[in-house]
Amino acid sequence: MSIFEELESEVRSYSRGWPVVFDRAQGSRLYSEDGKAYLDFFAGAGALNYGHNNPHLKKALIDYIQRDGVTHALDMYTVAKRDFLETFREKILAPRELDYKIVFPGPGGANAVEAALKLARKVTGKESVINFTNAFHGMTLGALSVTGNSMKRGAAGIPLVHATPMPYDKYFDGAMPDFMYFEKLLEDSGSGLNEPAAVIVEGVQGEGGINAARLEWLKGLDDLCKRHGILLILDDVQMGCGRTGPFFSFEDAGISPDIVCLSKSIGGYGLPMALTLIKPELDVWEPGEHNGTFRGISPAFVTATEALRVYWSDDELEKSTKAKGERIASTFKDLVESYPEANLVAKGRGLARGLEFGSGELAGAVCKAAFERGLLMETSGPDGEVMKLLPPLTLTDEELSEGLAIITESVAAVLK
Amino acid sequence: MSIFEELESEVRSYSRGWPVVFDRAQGSRLYSEDGKAYLDFFAGAGALNYGHNNPHLKKALIDYIQRDGVTHALDMYTVAKRDFLETFREKILAPRELDYKIVFPGPGGANAVEAALKLARKVTGKESVINFTNAFHGMTLGALSVTGNSMKRGAAGIPLVHATPMPYDKYFDGAMPDFMYFEKLLEDSGSGLNEPAAVIVEGVQGEGGINAARLEWLKGLDDLCKRHGILLILDDVQMGCGRTGPFFSFEDAGISPDIVCLSKSIGGYGLPMALTLIKPELDVWEPGEHNGTFRGISPAFVTATEALRVYWSDDELEKSTKAKGERIASTFKDLVESYPEANLVAKGRGLARGLEFGSGELAGAVCKAAFERGLLMETSGPDGEVMKLLPPLTLTDEELSEGLAIITESVAAVLK
Amino acid sequence: MSIFEELESEVRSYSRGWPVVFDRAQGSRLYSEDGKAYLDFFAGAGALNYGHNNPHLKKALIDYIQRDGVTHALDMYTVAKRDFLETFREKILAPRELDYKIVFPGPGGANAVEAALKLARKVTGKESVINFTNAFHGMTLGALSVTGNSMKRGAAGIPLVHATPMPYDKYFDGAMPDFMYFEKLLEDSGSGLNEPAAVIVEGVQGEGGINAARLEWLKGLDDLCKRHGILLILDDVQMGCGRTGPFFSFEDAGISPDIVCLSKSIGGYGLPMALTLIKPELDVWEPGEHNGTFRGISPAFVTATEALRVYWSDDELEKSTKAKGERIASTFKDLVESYPEANLVAKGRGLARGLEFGSGELAGAVCKAAFERGLLMETSGPDGEVMKLLPPLTLTDEELSEGLAIITESVAAVLK
Amino acid sequence: MSIFEELESEVRSYSRGWPVVFDRAQGSRLYSEDGKAYLDFFAGAGALNYGHNNPHLKKALIDYIQRDGVTHALDMYTVAKRDFLETFREKILAPRELDYKIVFPGPGGANAVEAALKLARKVTGKESVINFTNAFHGMTLGALSVTGNSMKRGAAGIPLVHATPMPYDKYFDGAMPDFMYFEKLLEDSGSGLNEPAAVIVEGVQGEGGINAARLEWLKGLDDLCKRHGILLILDDVQMGCGRTGPFFSFEDAGISPDIVCLSKSIGGYGLPMALTLIKPELDVWEPGEHNGTFRGISPAFVTATEALRVYWSDDELEKSTKAKGERIASTFKDLVESYPEANLVAKGRGLARGLEFGSGELAGAVCKAAFERGLLMETSGPDGEVMKLLPPLTLTDEELSEGLAIITESVAAVLK
Repeated sequence: MSIFEELESEVRSYSRGWPVVFDRAQGSRLYSEDGKAYLDFFAGAGALNYGHNNPHLKKALIDYIQRDGVTHALDMYTVAKRDFLETFREKILAPRELDYKIVFPGPGGANAVEAALKLARKVTGKESVINFTNAFHGMTLGALSVTGNSMKRGAAGIPLVHATPMPYDKYFDGAMPDFMYFEKLLEDSGSGLNEPAAVIVEGVQGEGGINAARLEWLKGLDDLCKRHGILLILDDVQMGCGRTGPFFSFEDAGISPDIVCLSKSIGGYGLPMALTLIKPELDVWEPGEHNGTFRGISPAFVTATEALRVYWSDDELEKSTKAKGERIASTFKDLVESYPEANLVAKGRGLARGLEFGSGELAGAVCKAAFERGLLMETSGPDGEVMKLLPPLTLTDEELSEGLAIITESVAAVLK
Repeated sequence: MSIFEELESEVRSYSRGWPVVFDRAQGSRLYSEDGKAYLDFFAGAGALNYGHNNPHLKKALIDYIQRDGVTHALDMYTVAKRDFLETFREKILAPRELDYKIVFPGPGGANAVEAALKLARKVTGKESVINFTNAFHGMTLGALSVTGNSMKRGAAGIPLVHATPMPYDKYFDGAMPDFMYFEKLLEDSGSGLNEPAAVIVEGVQGEGGINAARLEWLKGLDDLCKRHGILLILDDVQMGCGRTGPFFSFEDAGISPDIVCLSKSIGGYGLPMALTLIKPELDVWEPGEHNGTFRGISPAFVTATEALRVYWSDDELEKSTKAKGERIASTFKDLVESYPEANLVAKGRGLARGLEFGSGELAGAVCKAAFERGLLMETSGPDGEVMKLLPPLTLTDEELSEGLAIITESVAAVLK
Repeated sequence: MSIFEELESEVRSYSRGWPVVFDRAQGSRLYSEDGKAYLDFFAGAGALNYGHNNPHLKKALIDYIQRDGVTHALDMYTVAKRDFLETFREKILAPRELDYKIVFPGPGGANAVEAALKLARKVTGKESVINFTNAFHGMTLGALSVTGNSMKRGAAGIPLVHATPMPYDKYFDGAMPDFMYFEKLLEDSGSGLNEPAAVIVEGVQGEGGINAARLEWLKGLDDLCKRHGILLILDDVQMGCGRTGPFFSFEDAGISPDIVCLSKSIGGYGLPMALTLIKPELDVWEPGEHNGTFRGISPAFVTATEALRVYWSDDELEKSTKAKGERIASTFKDLVESYPEANLVAKGRGLARGLEFGSGELAGAVCKAAFERGLLMETSGPDGEVMKLLPPLTLTDEELSEGLAIITESVAAVLK
Repeated sequence: MSIFEELESEVRSYSRGWPVVFDRAQGSRLYSEDGKAYLDFFAGAGALNYGHNNPHLKKALIDYIQRDGVTHALDMYTVAKRDFLETFREKILAPRELDYKIVFPGPGGANAVEAALKLARKVTGKESVINFTNAFHGMTLGALSVTGNSMKRGAAGIPLVHATPMPYDKYFDGAMPDFMYFEKLLEDSGSGLNEPAAVIVEGVQGEGGINAARLEWLKGLDDLCKRHGILLILDDVQMGCGRTGPFFSFEDAGISPDIVCLSKSIGGYGLPMALTLIKPELDVWEPGEHNGTFRGISPAFVTATEALRVYWSDDELEKSTKAKGERIASTFKDLVESYPEANLVAKGRGLARGLEFGSGELAGAVCKAAFERGLLMETSGPDGEVMKLLPPLTLTDEELSEGLAIITESVAAVLK
């Protein structure tokens, strides 16, 4: 029995599907301690958009550590934070004409979401929040209350309240006009729906099954929120930082949400970091009203800054992400057509792609077959029925070809 | 107007008391970009027990990064995690005969607390939790609900429920026998107190004003919990990792809580990391029932492991911490006696020390005077009335002398 | 300024629309102290199905009081309660082959609902309840949480949680298949809907605007609850006791809900009384686990018993109610056709009838015009847009004609 | 098996201790159907302060019914309500210089409490309420949340939140200064106590074990509330209407609470009726914001009015109640002294009296022995350890002697 089995809680999960001990990683590959290479189409669940140990970032990181740059600084002013703020404004906010103030809410995505919910409630004086079917926003109590998965919700041990789920885009395959239900409840003073402080939504639902909302649906949601005076929180923790092509998943929808949550790949190198972007008029907190120990991890600021400089000074990464996404879509189309009886469904946008199988068992079997062939992928969706691809955005065309070939083989091995 | 003021939310706080831009740090000193050195008696709010950029840890960290050790691994098996688990067992658990399984709950202390609360509720099937007056456990919704500070609670924007505060040790200066109120409510089936799943407590309350519970009080609490079948959660996020002398703040009380929360200094170098230690019989979660993106940050495992090896292979650090703590206590005793009319109160244990003034204004003025003299300290307590000392445990005797001299001067400057 | 205005809270409402002081009442008529008669199409909001001071019941009541029958008996055994129980079994339960045990939950409808919700949660161990758009179940905290009206909900002063509204029948005018949304959320483990203990529904929504669910919709709801192991609570407080024709509003749907709430007209004479009928397997409470002072008001048992004997020994009242309801429907049809531009909508079943106007102002104006002509009616619906008819079931054909003539005149006065 | 056992829920309780079928009642006596007389020291749990079927009230009631006075009127203006309002002002409010507006909150005590809590929260914008150990306020969700009994709380099926219990008077037998704990929590901004909208308290706790708060404690509580801007709700449902001597249980404490709840004996004859008295400045509800079907039961207004005229035009009843209470106290003193080893404790004020035994079994056995001797009494307290006397205030001296003799005998039968 290994030390992991002896000492680590049974709650661990990824190690069950990939029962090897990883040691090193570079770019799109992870290496187990026996030297075997794995092509990584998982990318830290979206935290490694620029690949493992990206050399640009690695250099900046080592330089910073070697020169004894301050590591841990809470919300003190630091050179590293200033560089990040300036670069984020120059590379991200200014070109997109986005006017946000930045909260450093704590180290992870759940902190970004908790800060967003707290602020929306404080600003509006309302408690209720609208979330969407199959949403995933995190495991802390506030974030969990707006998350859909029933197993994860059950772990709270208390009734999760103050959130009402509405149907995400395509939930009824078009049988119901967009927002018909939601807006009727809002307009009917007898509906029994508590007036919401905010709506929280993902541009593409990753954990929920790679459900990509249509851009017009996102635009419609933004319009609805404006009509009813509801704050729109866009959780871009997994789908931001270029995952769907543009830096923010909502850019092509032409909207600017009131609050945006970023984490995962914002730090660039896999180090914990998170941002809550807020419209200036929402900046109502007193000093220290929300705080936390790990809000100012300078090494993450350094790699974050370098990532913005290297990858977001032009639109090459965005174009490449879209092009590679289309390649995956094309392979998925072939698979869908090759196995008509399997009723496969191709899903996603940019380099967030999913292939839905008839069951979690099938999708799991394909991921297992891929692992045996040296490819890492996980499943998502309420029953794990979606094979989920989140490769590094920086993977090469050859790596993409290699991965798609393994996928094609693995699907064949399971479905044939 | 600086980029910080333009772009960062008004919620920032430390930068207001220390309006300089820090750049580098080493050991017990931070350096602003203009080269000025500051002696640090704050230590990242307890996240830097081994000082800034500790050379032992720095070396291990750079080695790991340079050899492309995997950085971000969620809960996959890694060499870095194995090293940490083995070392934590060897250096910490085994010598203390503590039998815990380890949950990696997410990157920060609030994640450790959220996991503890969720698990305690799931195991017991009860919702209610007992917390203590002036407790601080974090800013996410679950952690905030057991935190005392009314400003921070108010930021939740929803009523915080499921927690009932009980008086912490010495809350009534001995006017009330320990636990008299708490136990009467538990024993009286008509008391109206919801039967609690758990009690959550800090060994020493840092944010609450450096309130050090007597060891016999902690032992009494443990006994009470056992008598009534209540789980005891010890939040050692700030006071663990040697802050009070021993590795855990509760060791000298002779208890072994059901759940222990660690974060802040566990990573050693200021990188985000957290642990929730649970008695093996509480390990009831299904795989993935609690998860999170930043649970496996290998660079933090590497520095955590090195810190355990360097500082916890013998009892030197523990002895040194206690000795230095006594030096502070002695200086504080002199100050108390020097200013009888000020009714100063000396508080704390180990290198968690506080000097209580008659008001937050006075304590703040002393901290300001110290900053002007090159010393960083913050205030704590409900009204900020306590000058709080959390120096690195690794500070030298000379640095301690230097700091205490500045403090003596600063108190004089304010009180005279 | 009258004593009412001086001493009674501003929360009073009916007195505002009918600013006269009533003194006596008989059958379908109320008399103000100056002797003016008012035809009553309001019937105590459904509490006076057998008319004011019904002579059969009055005789039994006076006999009981005169012979010093015990008045107030909590849940002691009394002759009056035994008579009621035997008669309720003989006249109501047995002929309908309904197998219920009876909880006397307290004096009013809200008590019946509170008891139902408490019991459903205890039996299932779940907290969440599904209610419907525009539901009305009462003003106490539990009942209010499943009520739709936003003004009344707002009066709670705390967030109302644990209930999620679903669309009542015809909420989308058929644009959405029945229960499509509800059942999808139940079947999708990622939907974010807390698993419900129970569904609470009215057979016809009175306060919500005289919305009469189709019988097949009620049957469909019952089927859905059975498929998903959800308890069905039928709140027949206003629509039971023959209001829609049969004794229970759900009889013609061919269902037997798990829990049925009765109040208002069950006492017969307008004295407070309520019942919660529960399937025998739900009878799990310990003695005294739910109680209350006014559970055994014998005068109400006496009039309740007499009402069952006089009116429910045969099907004459049921037939008469349906026939009179059709007469109202016919008049409403004429009105709808007479004012095509007004888009009137006729609603209801049995002697629960509504005429929907384009606005609350119009419906209110018609009720005002009717009051001036000696007819009492109130409005209902989220915006008060429905003129609501709940005449005594015992009104004569002549009284019905008289009332309908006044209505026709009043509509004309407003719309022309 | 009787119809009661077949058809009535197992939740019934009083019938278990008194397994006879009652039929008639007069004054202080109940009669079972076989003609046996029982002396009633229970008085409908305090709802029959003027005895069963009091002849003065009976006459007024029959007159009203016979002349077809309106029975059920919601909140319409009626002659019966006007008479009640005028009489209540003249006999109760004016002589005591109390300035209240009256809410008719629904038929029972729980409605009065629910209205009080809703209003206090709306007025203050705060959610939290302070209740007391061993409080009893009712069985609906809001009232239950401020009730102490754990069995009754458990029946809610959801976590009861928004209330924090504080120690009632003498809870620690003087070991702790009054309000020390409560006020410290209020004054400490870090205590974790949610700022309360209101305190809800009984002048004497009936169900909680006949705990009579000292008048100076009540005064101290009132002072504390005023100091901290907290509304004081006095629940006089059981202890009002002269039960402790004066009309209100709080009169002799010299306070005028912000909100007062009345029910039980306010109707006089045992018919459901309740009042929520509110300071004029709290009268902020919109028309209809709180409502209910059984707010205007005129027969109860008629008997209530007659009771006020007959019993509250002078201070005879008050004096008699106090004198009779002293007689009970004297007998209890004898019993305490006669059975020193039993550690009996005499409790109460006016005609709310209790004798505490060492256990619920003993107290129950004495009540059983008394029942066998023709006397009705119930137990109260968290473990049923208190023999509870609530005789009609109108009982004669002979009846009191008779009852006390039975009690003395019954105690002897059990303790000897």
